[in-house]
Amino acid sequence: MSNSKRLIFLPLGGAGEIGMNMYLYGYGAPDKERFILVDVGVTFPSMDGTPGVDLIMPDAAFIEARADRLDGIFITHAHEDHIGALGHLYSRLAAPIFTRKFTGAVARAKMEDHGQDIDRIEVMEAWPEQVTLGDFKVGFMPVSHSIPEASGLVIDSPAGRVVHTGDFKLDPDPIVGEAYNPALYREIAKDGVQALVCDSTNVFSKHAGKSESGLRPHIANMMKDASGMVVATTFASNVARLKTLAQAAVDSGRSVVVLGRSMKKMLGYANFAGLIDDFPPIVDVEDAHDIPRENLMLLVTGSQGERRAASAQLANGKYLGMTMREGDTFLFSSKTIPGNEVGVGRIINAYSEMGVNVVDESAGHYHVSGHANRPDLEEIHGIFKPKMLIPMHGEHRHLRAHADLAAERNIPSVIASNGAIVNLSGDTPDIESHIETGRIYLDGSRLIGAYDGVVLERMRMALRGAVVVSLLFEDNALIGESWAEVLGLPDTGAMEPALQEALERSIDEELVTAKKATLMSDDEVERLVTRTVSRVCKDLIGKKPVVKVLINRLVD
Amino acid sequence: MSNSKRLIFLPLGGAGEIGMNMYLYGYGAPDKERFILVDVGVTFPSMDGTPGVDLIMPDAAFIEARADRLDGIFITHAHEDHIGALGHLYSRLAAPIFTRKFTGAVARAKMEDHGQDIDRIEVMEAWPEQVTLGDFKVGFMPVSHSIPEASGLVIDSPAGRVVHTGDFKLDPDPIVGEAYNPALYREIAKDGVQALVCDSTNVFSKHAGKSESGLRPHIANMMKDASGMVVATTFASNVARLKTLAQAAVDSGRSVVVLGRSMKKMLGYANFAGLIDDFPPIVDVEDAHDIPRENLMLLVTGSQGERRAASAQLANGKYLGMTMREGDTFLFSSKTIPGNEVGVGRIINAYSEMGVNVVDESAGHYHVSGHANRPDLEEIHGIFKPKMLIPMHGEHRHLRAHADLAAERNIPSVIASNGAIVNLSGDTPDIESHIETGRIYLDGSRLIGAYDGVVLERMRMALRGAVVVSLLFEDNALIGESWAEVLGLPDTGAMEPALQEALERSIDEELVTAKKATLMSDDEVERLVTRTVSRVCKDLIGKKPVVKVLINRLVD
Repeated sequence: MSNSKRLIFLPLGGAGEIGMNMYLYGYGAPDKERFILVDVGVTFPSMDGTPGVDLIMPDAAFIEARADRLDGIFITHAHEDHIGALGHLYSRLAAPIFTRKFTGAVARAKMEDHGQDIDRIEVMEAWPEQVTLGDFKVGFMPVSHSIPEASGLVIDSPAGRVVHTGDFKLDPDPIVGEAYNPALYREIAKDGVQALVCDSTNVFSKHAGKSESGLRPHIANMMKDASGMVVATTFASNVARLKTLAQAAVDSGRSVVVLGRSMKKMLGYANFAGLIDDFPPIVDVEDAHDIPRENLMLLVTGSQGERRAASAQLANGKYLGMTMREGDTFLFSSKTIPGNEVGVGRIINAYSEMGVNVVDESAGHYHVSGHANRPDLEEIHGIFKPKMLIPMHGEHRHLRAHADLAAERNIPSVIASNGAIVNLSGDTPDIESHIETGRIYLDGSRLIGAYDGVVLERMRMALRGAVVVSLLFEDNALIGESWAEVLGLPDTGAMEPALQEALERSIDEELVTAKKATLMSDDEVERLVTRTVSRVCKDLIGKKPVVKVLINRLVD
Repeated sequence: MSNSKRLIFLPLGGAGEIGMNMYLYGYGAPDKERFILVDVGVTFPSMDGTPGVDLIMPDAAFIEARADRLDGIFITHAHEDHIGALGHLYSRLAAPIFTRKFTGAVARAKMEDHGQDIDRIEVMEAWPEQVTLGDFKVGFMPVSHSIPEASGLVIDSPAGRVVHTGDFKLDPDPIVGEAYNPALYREIAKDGVQALVCDSTNVFSKHAGKSESGLRPHIANMMKDASGMVVATTFASNVARLKTLAQAAVDSGRSVVVLGRSMKKMLGYANFAGLIDDFPPIVDVEDAHDIPRENLMLLVTGSQGERRAASAQLANGKYLGMTMREGDTFLFSSKTIPGNEVGVGRIINAYSEMGVNVVDESAGHYHVSGHANRPDLEEIHGIFKPKMLIPMHGEHRHLRAHADLAAERNIPSVIASNGAIVNLSGDTPDIESHIETGRIYLDGSRLIGAYDGVVLERMRMALRGAVVVSLLFEDNALIGESWAEVLGLPDTGAMEPALQEALERSIDEELVTAKKATLMSDDEVERLVTRTVSRVCKDLIGKKPVVKVLINRLVD
């Protein structure tokens, strides 16, 4: 590696996975770069791999150790996978934060929740405004997405201009916010783009993406045709969709009620940012009881089947005094994210039992994606004509397919997974080296490493149960009898001794016949007892539990 | 309820859910019916709701308590959700088992695994053969599905003829087994069908189902065009698909290797049943190493991303000496069952990293469903013209949509979830009453009730961790210090005392200041210590763990 200055790209999260986006750009000689950070996102835990974890975020140790060389943090948009870790990690990063106005409102709330200084947030206008940080000059390039004021970044450096798309789609009529503006993008591209770092989420979707506005007539017809109350759910941050749903409700003679705190918050931020001055009036839920149900439309949270959200509570019976009845309609104006099928299905079946008519996006009428499809990506490649392309925001298969797509246009690219340091200065992208990256978990109020073993032990207990054995020794002999406590294991049948009793008897027998040398050593006793518990459990219930042995030794 | 004889239908599993099918038919006066049981299936556990459980099956307590009135068990086909619980529950049911030949081979293996008498299995020919059991006469009606010799049942009773479809599709060319034969169904229907009890799985699929044979040209072209080795996976029991894949391989100059025990077993059963005399030759994996990889096609298990199956092991590096390389092709000739997306995605990404070309069913070329779609259901309604329809094999939303479909043809129906006793004797189905049903879990080697609390405790430990406290008392005073063992919880930070130490100190303080009356009672001590542990954990790590307290009292 030479000692000359170069421009590097280093994903800390979001490359080789969808979620917890965090990307570094650096300029300078090796080990002397100055950095900017793009996005500080989270990903969500699951019972499957991370039970009991509250949030998952990238391990930012690399930049935390170099925080003195971090000049700024840019947040492209306010989705949790781009902003969700800001409050949790900010004390370790401590650089000024740059956002647009709507995103800034969300960022402020995140910072306040963690007692951080909200004055570190600087709200910028869209391109052509730029901020200069060392050798970088950065501006926000408006894009369409499924949240207001989503932006790409134009990052100028001595090695040329990088366009970092963020999450985007091409929407000529996005209902809220700036429409797709190819002229603006051509203007940005006109002096050459060194690298396009580009969203890959929908690379497998073969048809051009659809506009948010295309949903309007379908949603309007549905609301008109529905006989009872209509309840609609979508992602709380999809303010454009909320507006379409609310407008269709008003047009069909329905009053709009919003249920769910996250949705109310997002409408508040959009209002603050001056984005929804023309939003239809919202009725308070307390006044809704006086309105005939055929004249009501509830906008509710919980499109992914979340157990505590409004949609699930309505499916269980009641929420803030509102109930669903036979003949009502429930609309999923959203797609089900893979992994959430079971939770969503639970709600649909509950509504089915009530006689509620459930409508979903399967006909393509009630939801559009917020990401660019394959032909849209090709259009963007053609507009920016970058010297090189770095696929981002995708699992390995998405990054690979996106790289293949670039190759069709003879644009060199490289698959850079988390931890790859990519030199963007040359004619082709060059992976210089790899650093260690990882995940950290918010577990209760603590941040822990994914490999600390804490969650692994919980998963082992979930799969195998646990046995805790308490022993009391005096003069290297067991006093009384052992005590085994069984957690999460079936007791044995009525014709046999209970598992606990069988365990205690076997442990006692082993300890009575054990050698003194064994009994003198806590480690040896632990090994012996663990082996005994495993054997007895395997014999009686066919499982080998997690075993903990507590040894008390009486000292005179 | 009158005391006259009537025909009843009682689902014990599979109605209001997809999985663990088990249906009772009875004829006789209330509490004097004689029964036949149709299918004895399982459903599969998940980390989400049933961690550590091995299998889930219906609670058959109702028929177990009336086993003296059970005259026979019929298995429609050999999928696990129809046959998987046979070995586990047979000792409680103990009636003769009736199957067709292929299903009988699978049933024999299940019975042998559990030391049951295989002579209780009676293999029958397809319709028009019938067996008479009390007032019932039952025959196997051939249907197409995704496993050989799938069958519906024609159940004659003094109250008329019931057609129980089992799982079915309409396939004029199913590759293996009997083609869709509307003439045969019309013959069965000609004297009238009292009730059609009918598969509802694909009621939401709007287009007519596709034939298994339609895949042949696509698969053949894919194998011809592939440059390296081809590896294909599908459900092990889909023998027709295995044959199509193997034939396409041979036609493109490839030798066929089968990897995965369940697939080999299924081919063995099909061979035993005389169904695949024309199956292409299979090469042993030991001989495969001498064959150029472009002349190989591996048929492997693991279409659902199962961690220990051949497909996952190849994705991890090696299986039985075989490895995947850049330029090879991996074909998912299967759909991903909801809930398995993450596991399947893991494999696809691993192959993507290897440079293996992954092909899936998204283009509709490499997989067809085994269930009748909406237009196919309409066709069947039209052929059987039943007096009433009972939707089966579906979640509530499927049953409801199927009932709505029947209503379009003015066929009366009822949504009968598990536990509903439906009188089929009249002109419309009538739910007489409900019995309690439920689920039992195979947990290691034990069968336990879903509500026994065992799995709930494991889930609580997975979400919240556990703390076990051991205390030693003499004369109602703590001897020495308490001992807290922490399982699956983060330790506290470097600047604070470790969690374990903090817990022990707080417990000791509480016990030192506790009243004697408290210390004399194990229950009171347990309450005090549990409260203390909860408080300390909540303060330090933001979680409230499962707490167990072990109290030893020294007695002189």
